[in-house]
Amino acid sequence: MYLRYGIIGGGNGAFIGDVHRKGAYLSGLAKLTAGCFTRDPQKNIECAKQWNLEDNERLYANFREMADAEGARKDGIEFVSITTPNDTHYEMSKAFLEKGIHVMCDKPLTLTIDEALELEELANSKNLCFGITYSYAGYAMIRQMRSMVEAGELGDIVNIVCEYPQDWLLLRLDAGGAPQWRLDTSRGAISLATGDIGTHMEHLVYSTTGLEITEVLARLDHIPPELPLESNSTVMFKLSNGAPGILWCCVAAIGHDSDVRIRVYGTKGSLEWFHGTPGLLKFARFKEPVQILAMNRPYNSPESLAASHLPAGHPEGYYEAFGNIYEGFCREILDKKAGKTDGKYIYPKVSDGVRGVKFIHACVKSDKDGNVWTKL
Amino acid sequence: MYLRYGIIGGGNGAFIGDVHRKGAYLSGLAKLTAGCFTRDPQKNIECAKQWNLEDNERLYANFREMADAEGARKDGIEFVSITTPNDTHYEMSKAFLEKGIHVMCDKPLTLTIDEALELEELANSKNLCFGITYSYAGYAMIRQMRSMVEAGELGDIVNIVCEYPQDWLLLRLDAGGAPQWRLDTSRGAISLATGDIGTHMEHLVYSTTGLEITEVLARLDHIPPELPLESNSTVMFKLSNGAPGILWCCVAAIGHDSDVRIRVYGTKGSLEWFHGTPGLLKFARFKEPVQILAMNRPYNSPESLAASHLPAGHPEGYYEAFGNIYEGFCREILDKKAGKTDGKYIYPKVSDGVRGVKFIHACVKSDKDGNVWTKL
Amino acid sequence: MYLRYGIIGGGNGAFIGDVHRKGAYLSGLAKLTAGCFTRDPQKNIECAKQWNLEDNERLYANFREMADAEGARKDGIEFVSITTPNDTHYEMSKAFLEKGIHVMCDKPLTLTIDEALELEELANSKNLCFGITYSYAGYAMIRQMRSMVEAGELGDIVNIVCEYPQDWLLLRLDAGGAPQWRLDTSRGAISLATGDIGTHMEHLVYSTTGLEITEVLARLDHIPPELPLESNSTVMFKLSNGAPGILWCCVAAIGHDSDVRIRVYGTKGSLEWFHGTPGLLKFARFKEPVQILAMNRPYNSPESLAASHLPAGHPEGYYEAFGNIYEGFCREILDKKAGKTDGKYIYPKVSDGVRGVKFIHACVKSDKDGNVWTKL
Amino acid sequence: MYLRYGIIGGGNGAFIGDVHRKGAYLSGLAKLTAGCFTRDPQKNIECAKQWNLEDNERLYANFREMADAEGARKDGIEFVSITTPNDTHYEMSKAFLEKGIHVMCDKPLTLTIDEALELEELANSKNLCFGITYSYAGYAMIRQMRSMVEAGELGDIVNIVCEYPQDWLLLRLDAGGAPQWRLDTSRGAISLATGDIGTHMEHLVYSTTGLEITEVLARLDHIPPELPLESNSTVMFKLSNGAPGILWCCVAAIGHDSDVRIRVYGTKGSLEWFHGTPGLLKFARFKEPVQILAMNRPYNSPESLAASHLPAGHPEGYYEAFGNIYEGFCREILDKKAGKTDGKYIYPKVSDGVRGVKFIHACVKSDKDGNVWTKL
Repeated sequence: MYLRYGIIGGGNGAFIGDVHRKGAYLSGLAKLTAGCFTRDPQKNIECAKQWNLEDNERLYANFREMADAEGARKDGIEFVSITTPNDTHYEMSKAFLEKGIHVMCDKPLTLTIDEALELEELANSKNLCFGITYSYAGYAMIRQMRSMVEAGELGDIVNIVCEYPQDWLLLRLDAGGAPQWRLDTSRGAISLATGDIGTHMEHLVYSTTGLEITEVLARLDHIPPELPLESNSTVMFKLSNGAPGILWCCVAAIGHDSDVRIRVYGTKGSLEWFHGTPGLLKFARFKEPVQILAMNRPYNSPESLAASHLPAGHPEGYYEAFGNIYEGFCREILDKKAGKTDGKYIYPKVSDGVRGVKFIHACVKSDKDGNVWTKL
Repeated sequence: MYLRYGIIGGGNGAFIGDVHRKGAYLSGLAKLTAGCFTRDPQKNIECAKQWNLEDNERLYANFREMADAEGARKDGIEFVSITTPNDTHYEMSKAFLEKGIHVMCDKPLTLTIDEALELEELANSKNLCFGITYSYAGYAMIRQMRSMVEAGELGDIVNIVCEYPQDWLLLRLDAGGAPQWRLDTSRGAISLATGDIGTHMEHLVYSTTGLEITEVLARLDHIPPELPLESNSTVMFKLSNGAPGILWCCVAAIGHDSDVRIRVYGTKGSLEWFHGTPGLLKFARFKEPVQILAMNRPYNSPESLAASHLPAGHPEGYYEAFGNIYEGFCREILDKKAGKTDGKYIYPKVSDGVRGVKFIHACVKSDKDGNVWTKL
Repeated sequence: MYLRYGIIGGGNGAFIGDVHRKGAYLSGLAKLTAGCFTRDPQKNIECAKQWNLEDNERLYANFREMADAEGARKDGIEFVSITTPNDTHYEMSKAFLEKGIHVMCDKPLTLTIDEALELEELANSKNLCFGITYSYAGYAMIRQMRSMVEAGELGDIVNIVCEYPQDWLLLRLDAGGAPQWRLDTSRGAISLATGDIGTHMEHLVYSTTGLEITEVLARLDHIPPELPLESNSTVMFKLSNGAPGILWCCVAAIGHDSDVRIRVYGTKGSLEWFHGTPGLLKFARFKEPVQILAMNRPYNSPESLAASHLPAGHPEGYYEAFGNIYEGFCREILDKKAGKTDGKYIYPKVSDGVRGVKFIHACVKSDKDGNVWTKL
Repeated sequence: MYLRYGIIGGGNGAFIGDVHRKGAYLSGLAKLTAGCFTRDPQKNIECAKQWNLEDNERLYANFREMADAEGARKDGIEFVSITTPNDTHYEMSKAFLEKGIHVMCDKPLTLTIDEALELEELANSKNLCFGITYSYAGYAMIRQMRSMVEAGELGDIVNIVCEYPQDWLLLRLDAGGAPQWRLDTSRGAISLATGDIGTHMEHLVYSTTGLEITEVLARLDHIPPELPLESNSTVMFKLSNGAPGILWCCVAAIGHDSDVRIRVYGTKGSLEWFHGTPGLLKFARFKEPVQILAMNRPYNSPESLAASHLPAGHPEGYYEAFGNIYEGFCREILDKKAGKTDGKYIYPKVSDGVRGVKFIHACVKSDKDGNVWTKL
């Protein structure tokens, strides 16, 4: 029942590689079988040992070697997790897709819209699963939001207000280390806050409501001013149903942890979710007392309950959200292997990744053009 | 020591007149001496009785009569509180100022910028106090914010994010009653959400930081669509020190009470205040644990403590905030009477009212012109 | 419509006298007409001036003089507010009751049970209103709790957990000033925390549920150890319906403001109220999402709405709670004057005061006897 | 580097077995190598498959067979995790200890004090590690509490107030299923709430402060009354430094998830931790603003940071707390293997388990004897 998979990245202390590994484990459906954790051979070996990759033969010096070798094996990996910097996503994803290997890739999908579209087409043409780890989409109560919106609990959506302030950039600058590739325009970086975390919010808008952002008016601010890319991003947007919305994200906001908050307003009610208490969901029906829904209580939707693992009140967190994304992705692969096609699994897909890249580009263009409305 | 004052309005069940009366009482410096509570003679008498206006001679049928009579008495009122609909503020304020009577007026000051400027000039030329009841400015912890900003606790201000969602419009529409003059364009109404509550936020930006909004890019949305004026307002703004900011207000947001929230970010720290817990203030210093300051604790500033009346932890609310505004206003009048000029009293003044009217007009124009940057 | 009333106390900066004055004003039914604010003649005059007591003739040197003179006047005060230290409540209350004047007295009612019973009998025999300012009972959402319990929303009450931690004693000790009469056993003090704030909780248990505490097992701790009376009090109790409960109060708990919290558990649901957000009430129905009720929303009970004055979300606080207690008390007096007897007004009465004194004595006895069950 | 381990239990859908498995994985130091998941042979096989136990030879029909076989192998398991009902802990632990295999056992350790003492002696005499999964002790901010207490941040501890209300019993009764062995006195059950969750609180008192509970006065209530054992437990206690404290736990409290809360008060400051936001810690210093410490911020102690895995603000939950307990346990075993003895690893040990059993018995005795002080 376990899928064999490999990881690219994770060997240099970047936290996200380790999150992928734990998320895959928590899904209960995948077993680490191959890896290329870093280009440093010594560290690569250490990471393999630390992560209990048992078969040294399947530790690779670079991703191409890994794609070739695993693609050629009978017992080759069934999917690969790409956890490396943004400018590598395109070529790595392409290499594995071409070998017929399913891909789970970190966000944002690629640097350019063309690259994103090419990957989408490639995955579709090869009938391969392609997941994107928009992490917040994995929380049970985010799924609950979608279920409630679909069930009409909010009536028509009339407004969305979301934000993601944090302070990591300031911590990094203070620690003396420049946040490397994220600010390196020579490596294709065109946006900092919007591309790093604004894109999470764009996805949450879609994953909680099914509505797409069709147009943006963005202002990108450099805090501190000498920063080469924006650290503060404010985006007015229009939704596919005509409703307005707003998104604010900032990586230079003192006093915030990872304070994702999304509020969806409808004609009959509203919903609010906050990352600081991910197992709770505020639901307000017009003229009634506000309700606080708690994760894994029986009144939640089947989709939400399927992403809940512990008795109500026992906190689940970020790793478990990753686990839920991996679980949906793995189940779809298992279905494909079994020739089934009717399963409906919830995880961010390559089409979400494409939309995300379009969103980033539209925001950057809107700002460059003087804060004007720009279509995605 | 008590100042004699009169009230215009309050007799038709509008809540704000009663708030003025209680605020004036809580200041401990003013005594209700005259009034014109409504144009309905019977109700006028009833209100006088209910509010313990003892001298029937000083109950007036209309504001002009009151201004004339009180202006002519030796023991005439020393100030008047204007608590009537927006389109009456200008002529009423003018009438009393011309009689040499100080004025406390509800926000927004006037319908047009010219009217506002005229009142400002008139008050200044006559050396009269002119207060505006931007109610939230009266909270002790809002004063604490200003004290901390002035003391440099935040470093340079780099961003302001504020909002005021509530649901009163929906409640009113549901109750069948149209919210009358607020939506009546024939009575000069040009904005609903921005003029009603956005203006509070504009003032909070100034009163907490001393920074003025110099330019806005606003989007005004009609929720529900058939509404003649906007109920949802999103405003990107630029501050006088060059920093960016954003303001969202909505009178059609299910799930909110009167949820004013203002967050000020600086290079060294940030502050956040929320109306639901008005006696608390979140303060974050870079790299340190978040602090929660509580009202009337000794570590607060003298300005904040002066607006705190009960032992820490005993909640003070909206009436008390009004009381604080009235207290500053009355103290300044008392100083004038005593020939003193060095007192520094904190309350919103006519200049704040002028800036508020400019803000509303700039937002409306920005939206009409297609969401473009518009100077105040 | 206004009742004439006098105040005893309030002239030495003790906060509670001023709270009574503001509460009486906010009730909209009482006018300060006489007073004896302190035994210091100069301060007495200053306080009269500051509080706008207009008629100097009705400023008295001591309470007996005031009872005699006001009792003899045709336009004498209709009720008196007693805001002085605990050991004076008995004789003052008695003096005014004997003159046929209604009494509002601070808690605890008296030092001894016999005194309390005597006052109760006296008030009843003279058909006079006798209110006790158990302040928290004045909050709108405390009334909402009672309404919901009476409506059966909780089913049978099976448990009550309440607490009141604060730090005022430590602040006072730190400031060098001993908290005078509260610790002065020669003035009859037998308890600090239990008598000062535990008694509030005992009353909240009753006023939210209608259940009486019939038996206690108390432990009284001296923090710091050299304190002559207890500052920390833990009380297991039995309710009149047989259900258990617990009460903890402490005046030496660093990190707390005035953190009253009461939780009532039933077979069908539970309620929780916290003083830090007095306008909210948590309500949980078995197997349903938790609800947060907000003050002055239409879904609240008539009793709760009658104690709510501002639109939902505009905070009301401690003064307003006092105002609500005064309003019920005054309305009952007005009814008596009008010969009506069918009004049902909510305010703590002398019978509540008697029960409160019994509670304090039972706790002290239980502790002295070695933490054993002791009947009230 | 990975330790080989086996699990007993987990095969019948009880959630705690799965938590052990995930916790062991998240420690990064243990690999599931053997198991006896249930006595049902078919389910045993299924569970092995689901949990990726690769070697069928090491799936056992019962715990004795497993202890014998693994104890005899050269590559036998190095520790066993016991996740079965309470009445089996003793004999299972004993069987593995006798084979020289380290033990991780669920709480409470045993049914009787004698059994607990025997296991402690056995483990000590064989120099084996014996961990107890008092889960809450694994949270990073619980470790932070201990660090701060040890650093003297609170001064002397003067009071502890802790509680654990939840509603699981009511849910189970409502679902028709009696909660089996937990209420089965014929299987040695003597307590429900105290033994199931009160014991967690007793351990938190110790693990956050290093102080032991020396004496208790307990009241055990049956809610609903027909329950054979108590579902509501209130315990006054005395600490080894003479300070008082109180503990309340209830498994029949509507409106609660898993609402562990512990508050420790000292002469200089206080700390409060709540399970609903496990990554935060409230810290109040006398006369200073309350502080909110957030997990994995650099200002935390090394012990707390060692138990933090994700950037600040990315929630970690219950599985991760288990992971931290397993990590400390595994590191100590690894040290033993390497002949090191100077490592200091934080995890609940057999001595904690012994104290826990004594606590439960003392509470039951105190209640039986009429709520009297009872020594542990």
